[in-house]
Amino acid sequence: MRKTLYYGMVGASLSSFIGVVHRIGISFDGRAKMVAGCFSTNAKKNQETADFYEVDQNRVYASYEEMAEKEGKREDKIDFVVISAPNNVHYKTAKAFLENGIHVLCEKPLCFEVEEGEELKKLAEEKGLFFCVNYSYSGNNMVKEARELIRAGKIGRIINVNAEYLQEYLVDDVGDTEDKMVKLSSWRKDPKVAGISNCVGDIGTHIENTVAYMTGLKLKRVAAKLDYFGQPLDLNANILVEFDNGAHGVYCSSQVCVGHMNGLVVRIFGTEGAIEWVQENPNILSVTLKGQPTQIYNRGMGYETARSQAVNRLPSGHPEGLYVAFANIYRDWIEALLKVVNGEPVDPAECDFPKIDAGIEGVRFVHACVESNAKDAAWVEV
Amino acid sequence: MRKTLYYGMVGASLSSFIGVVHRIGISFDGRAKMVAGCFSTNAKKNQETADFYEVDQNRVYASYEEMAEKEGKREDKIDFVVISAPNNVHYKTAKAFLENGIHVLCEKPLCFEVEEGEELKKLAEEKGLFFCVNYSYSGNNMVKEARELIRAGKIGRIINVNAEYLQEYLVDDVGDTEDKMVKLSSWRKDPKVAGISNCVGDIGTHIENTVAYMTGLKLKRVAAKLDYFGQPLDLNANILVEFDNGAHGVYCSSQVCVGHMNGLVVRIFGTEGAIEWVQENPNILSVTLKGQPTQIYNRGMGYETARSQAVNRLPSGHPEGLYVAFANIYRDWIEALLKVVNGEPVDPAECDFPKIDAGIEGVRFVHACVESNAKDAAWVEV
Amino acid sequence: MRKTLYYGMVGASLSSFIGVVHRIGISFDGRAKMVAGCFSTNAKKNQETADFYEVDQNRVYASYEEMAEKEGKREDKIDFVVISAPNNVHYKTAKAFLENGIHVLCEKPLCFEVEEGEELKKLAEEKGLFFCVNYSYSGNNMVKEARELIRAGKIGRIINVNAEYLQEYLVDDVGDTEDKMVKLSSWRKDPKVAGISNCVGDIGTHIENTVAYMTGLKLKRVAAKLDYFGQPLDLNANILVEFDNGAHGVYCSSQVCVGHMNGLVVRIFGTEGAIEWVQENPNILSVTLKGQPTQIYNRGMGYETARSQAVNRLPSGHPEGLYVAFANIYRDWIEALLKVVNGEPVDPAECDFPKIDAGIEGVRFVHACVESNAKDAAWVEV
Amino acid sequence: MRKTLYYGMVGASLSSFIGVVHRIGISFDGRAKMVAGCFSTNAKKNQETADFYEVDQNRVYASYEEMAEKEGKREDKIDFVVISAPNNVHYKTAKAFLENGIHVLCEKPLCFEVEEGEELKKLAEEKGLFFCVNYSYSGNNMVKEARELIRAGKIGRIINVNAEYLQEYLVDDVGDTEDKMVKLSSWRKDPKVAGISNCVGDIGTHIENTVAYMTGLKLKRVAAKLDYFGQPLDLNANILVEFDNGAHGVYCSSQVCVGHMNGLVVRIFGTEGAIEWVQENPNILSVTLKGQPTQIYNRGMGYETARSQAVNRLPSGHPEGLYVAFANIYRDWIEALLKVVNGEPVDPAECDFPKIDAGIEGVRFVHACVESNAKDAAWVEV
Repeated sequence: MRKTLYYGMVGASLSSFIGVVHRIGISFDGRAKMVAGCFSTNAKKNQETADFYEVDQNRVYASYEEMAEKEGKREDKIDFVVISAPNNVHYKTAKAFLENGIHVLCEKPLCFEVEEGEELKKLAEEKGLFFCVNYSYSGNNMVKEARELIRAGKIGRIINVNAEYLQEYLVDDVGDTEDKMVKLSSWRKDPKVAGISNCVGDIGTHIENTVAYMTGLKLKRVAAKLDYFGQPLDLNANILVEFDNGAHGVYCSSQVCVGHMNGLVVRIFGTEGAIEWVQENPNILSVTLKGQPTQIYNRGMGYETARSQAVNRLPSGHPEGLYVAFANIYRDWIEALLKVVNGEPVDPAECDFPKIDAGIEGVRFVHACVESNAKDAAWVEV
Repeated sequence: MRKTLYYGMVGASLSSFIGVVHRIGISFDGRAKMVAGCFSTNAKKNQETADFYEVDQNRVYASYEEMAEKEGKREDKIDFVVISAPNNVHYKTAKAFLENGIHVLCEKPLCFEVEEGEELKKLAEEKGLFFCVNYSYSGNNMVKEARELIRAGKIGRIINVNAEYLQEYLVDDVGDTEDKMVKLSSWRKDPKVAGISNCVGDIGTHIENTVAYMTGLKLKRVAAKLDYFGQPLDLNANILVEFDNGAHGVYCSSQVCVGHMNGLVVRIFGTEGAIEWVQENPNILSVTLKGQPTQIYNRGMGYETARSQAVNRLPSGHPEGLYVAFANIYRDWIEALLKVVNGEPVDPAECDFPKIDAGIEGVRFVHACVESNAKDAAWVEV
Repeated sequence: MRKTLYYGMVGASLSSFIGVVHRIGISFDGRAKMVAGCFSTNAKKNQETADFYEVDQNRVYASYEEMAEKEGKREDKIDFVVISAPNNVHYKTAKAFLENGIHVLCEKPLCFEVEEGEELKKLAEEKGLFFCVNYSYSGNNMVKEARELIRAGKIGRIINVNAEYLQEYLVDDVGDTEDKMVKLSSWRKDPKVAGISNCVGDIGTHIENTVAYMTGLKLKRVAAKLDYFGQPLDLNANILVEFDNGAHGVYCSSQVCVGHMNGLVVRIFGTEGAIEWVQENPNILSVTLKGQPTQIYNRGMGYETARSQAVNRLPSGHPEGLYVAFANIYRDWIEALLKVVNGEPVDPAECDFPKIDAGIEGVRFVHACVESNAKDAAWVEV
Repeated sequence: MRKTLYYGMVGASLSSFIGVVHRIGISFDGRAKMVAGCFSTNAKKNQETADFYEVDQNRVYASYEEMAEKEGKREDKIDFVVISAPNNVHYKTAKAFLENGIHVLCEKPLCFEVEEGEELKKLAEEKGLFFCVNYSYSGNNMVKEARELIRAGKIGRIINVNAEYLQEYLVDDVGDTEDKMVKLSSWRKDPKVAGISNCVGDIGTHIENTVAYMTGLKLKRVAAKLDYFGQPLDLNANILVEFDNGAHGVYCSSQVCVGHMNGLVVRIFGTEGAIEWVQENPNILSVTLKGQPTQIYNRGMGYETARSQAVNRLPSGHPEGLYVAFANIYRDWIEALLKVVNGEPVDPAECDFPKIDAGIEGVRFVHACVESNAKDAAWVEV
């Protein structure tokens, strides 16, 4: 009866902020150990990271292909791989590990093309492997609370959605004719690495996922106006959306909105009430019932639904932040895999981590937005 | 040398909330007196209102036509009329008073058709009369401050706009098959009285005006998705907008968004900074310069621009509300008319009240939105 | 059957911000007309103000004594006087008008000495005259809502109070050795005019009144530490308070707290819940029941108590500000006086304006704080 | 050259929320490993916790005395111990480990008596050992930013302090005559375990420390009114404070304030500006310069001081919460100890963790408050 999992990482060298968040998130519950990695294509960085984490030299790999192949053949192979590398690496890396019998947790976006996503899904199913796409905001307690309340019918039928993800960090790119490809985050602006979209692909897709997670609604079509401001990829997006239940809404995604650091805000309006969640102050949820005062839910209080109570780590008023969102996703992920490795049945309903379908939906959304924009914001089916 | 103006009202019986706001707004500076009126088509209400305000019985009129004609012939005729009656009455009433040589201040929307607006404009110009359309939010000190800062280049070139006006008061209408025309506000939902739009016409148009006032930008085209939820007129609207400078944005207008009472929120994003104003807490303005902390401006402080300083009535921290917004518009209106009646020149630049062009622009906007929606949110020129 | 009252003003020249607020507040309901005044001891200012308000030349007075005496003898004498002059004038002016049979509404503080207050009270009772002390914040809808909820037992027995009134406008006085008596507000800093306290007397007393109004609790004793920073009167005060029900709390009053404009904040904590009101955003009330989410009450909504509903002037989400607080006090004041002049009985319970007892309580509070401070913050009975 | 430290824990069984936070906080930077522990006096809990963390059976101890003694004798003894056990255990445990040559990080309060604290300090100095008292809020980035700004003179000379720490979780204890000693947190209410104070000792002391850390001011004396509401220890405290620079302020600490979960709020007012920090939204700092708009600092932005920049872990807008505050303290603690074990000099100025002096100051503060309250809030020197 195993109580601990072993994992490896692709990407996530010491200089990668998100890679560190993965490692810390996993460590919260102490049920998985990192034992292998290909942390960087830069050999020095790769080795430094391996040294820092005290990874056995035999399991430090120069390429993800080597890692997938060699780990796949080990008796004590890693149980899962975390892929936290630039976007263009996701698909092929995920594929390689699946082919070698290793469960995959991959950063978003899952891949560039919908077909790639479908292929990975098929492959995982054939191999009986689990696949998580790290839409990390769904790990927040209050996002789960919103979902529970909406599922329970608290706000009635959804009739309007207003969501945004605003940042300011690329505003200097606007209207600049010089090459800006030298910034820290430059790969996000390079189509070869980032894919067909920057702003929608990087952050707009979090709006899509968070709304889908909270509401269970599917996007039917989008009418998107993207602004490139002279850059190869989009920096700003205003998107009309239509859901399968007939409701409409807007998604606004931007990296040029001064005054907003990482402003994911989701507002769901129903016939009986409304819910608002603000990522930058994530322990709070605003819930209003029709004709009633807005109620400010605090994470950790007794009035939370059972599901949210279950994922509380700290008492109310003690801020849980981004690391905890990761930790919550990893808890569900690791609990499911522990059952798998121990031969126990896994109830899909208990697997509250973002699945490959969410990843594919994200790719569809990005493609639809880019296509719509190319058609001057005509409606495009998702 | 006259120091006081005389005015009459059409509409604004005692039971009209907005009529009372007009009367109080005018009274703030004590420079205009109500001496005539046709307050209601209901004779009893008309008389009661006249009695309450101690209007001379000779100047209480049964119809706006009678009032316009008779006042127009008096030696001591009213200097201006305030039209605060249902939408369908605006055009013909305004026309009648203009034809009788009386300046007009009219509630928004100016009229139903763009052509009507153009006709009124032409008529006013021919007669040398002033015409104000009461987009009252532009009377707020902090809206003026936003405009001054934007004009001064503080936030650079505008690259994105995100504005909304959300209310919840009609959410019970959603999906209801029964006749809801019995509510207090029912005329707003009746196309014959309200015109072609409820939600966009009543409140969406305030978004349009406030953004235009703050930024000086002109709307080029809109792509609007309106939701009717089974009602004759729209209750919810999500609108992509494009400005003449190439910038895009979204306007969201709704009467079915639970948790929002009168939520006009305007956010203007530029290359150098951003500005946010929230009508429900109007004495505050958020100003952020690129890479700097957000600054919370308080109305009444020494750092305000000269223009805003000039319209301060209370020291900082003492809330000025809706009445003051009206009072500020009326101050500019009355100051201009006092110059006119005293034969002094009026500098248009000093006339900081919403002019008939703003009213016509509002009608254009509503028409464009309704037309766009009829074409499934295709772009329509404004 | 009279429907209109006539009043006069002492103080409130055109340059007095609070004087204008009185006049406008009275005008909201159109039931009282200003017909007399002694607006300034400066003859020119006095005349200018009289001219502006078109006061009959015969009723413009050079001194309050002359005004009280001459008005008292007129057949058509003013029904009430509004005293909006510096503090040192309150007592003697109020006394003069009472002696001449005229109801009095006086700005706070009522007077300098408790004995003076008791004398005025006795005089008013003997003459059968009404007396209002203008603690204007009690006119706010949401302050009334707080009182109604507390009275109804919503938050249980009160066990702690935390209230503050913070301003920054005198911070430059701190540690300054130069004469600062030249500022606009300089009389507030002059003991001969302002009395024994600046900060506690001017704004701390609003804390005392607002808490007393909301809770019905009486202050039993205070332990106050005042800071003078080299000035003749206090600029900062931190005060421990004890109520007659045994509960404790703190009152913090300051004119040197940078970042606070007019920050009256009242928080009342009970065994079953808590209430918070913030004057700078006065249309909101935070109400929390034990173990429940905080509820954000919006003025004007159907869930308000009947009392607050009755004083709503604008729909929810349309900000009512300081003028409305004044207008609400004046409505109650004028309604009561109209009954008096028409010989109708007045139910004291209906008179929801601050009475002379509140004014006396305020004077007691200021004296107790100053005395406590002189004893190094020893407890002093109020 | 060692790169990793080894530590043990006293207390911190799996059911202790704060014990887990310690372990996770340490793990963030991966530079210290837990290898020994006495997690509970309950043998079963002790073993379960040891098993969970895979602690070598030889280093699981039944008592802290045994642990201190045996670890002290090992060649590979732990470098430091973390004491996260009930208050009454702190002093004797810390003493035991110091005597055995082991550095100590102890939860607050340091001990019950000032003399105990002084003794521990002397012992640590004699042994050349480091001692940290875990005032965790000082680990927050924005608390450090506040300190840096204040140190740099940004807000001038401090003239007033207003700080509070409000919770609601014990409100049910008020006026209850039944035994409430059965709650989860009951030991906090038991004088034998918690010491002479509950509310001031548990949370009031965080106010004292956070203000001292931010400002560098020392408390001179306090005048405290504590409310016990029939319980053996205090549940509510309102405290006047006086600093060594002559400034005054109030500290309010409560466990019965409905609507507040973990509401540590610190506001520091100076002659040139003011700073406000709210623990429940810790990535934000409000900074106001005299006469200027309030500036909302966001953690992680380029305008932060170098010190705060250095402790940033996530980009701006990605919430860092309580775990990060712990991680930051542990980073400084571990970096200092690594130097010690490697024989490098340690610059005290670099050791930005709370030292034993802070712990002693906390004990002094609690004693002064309790003594003051016993004297009916007379001033007591700290």
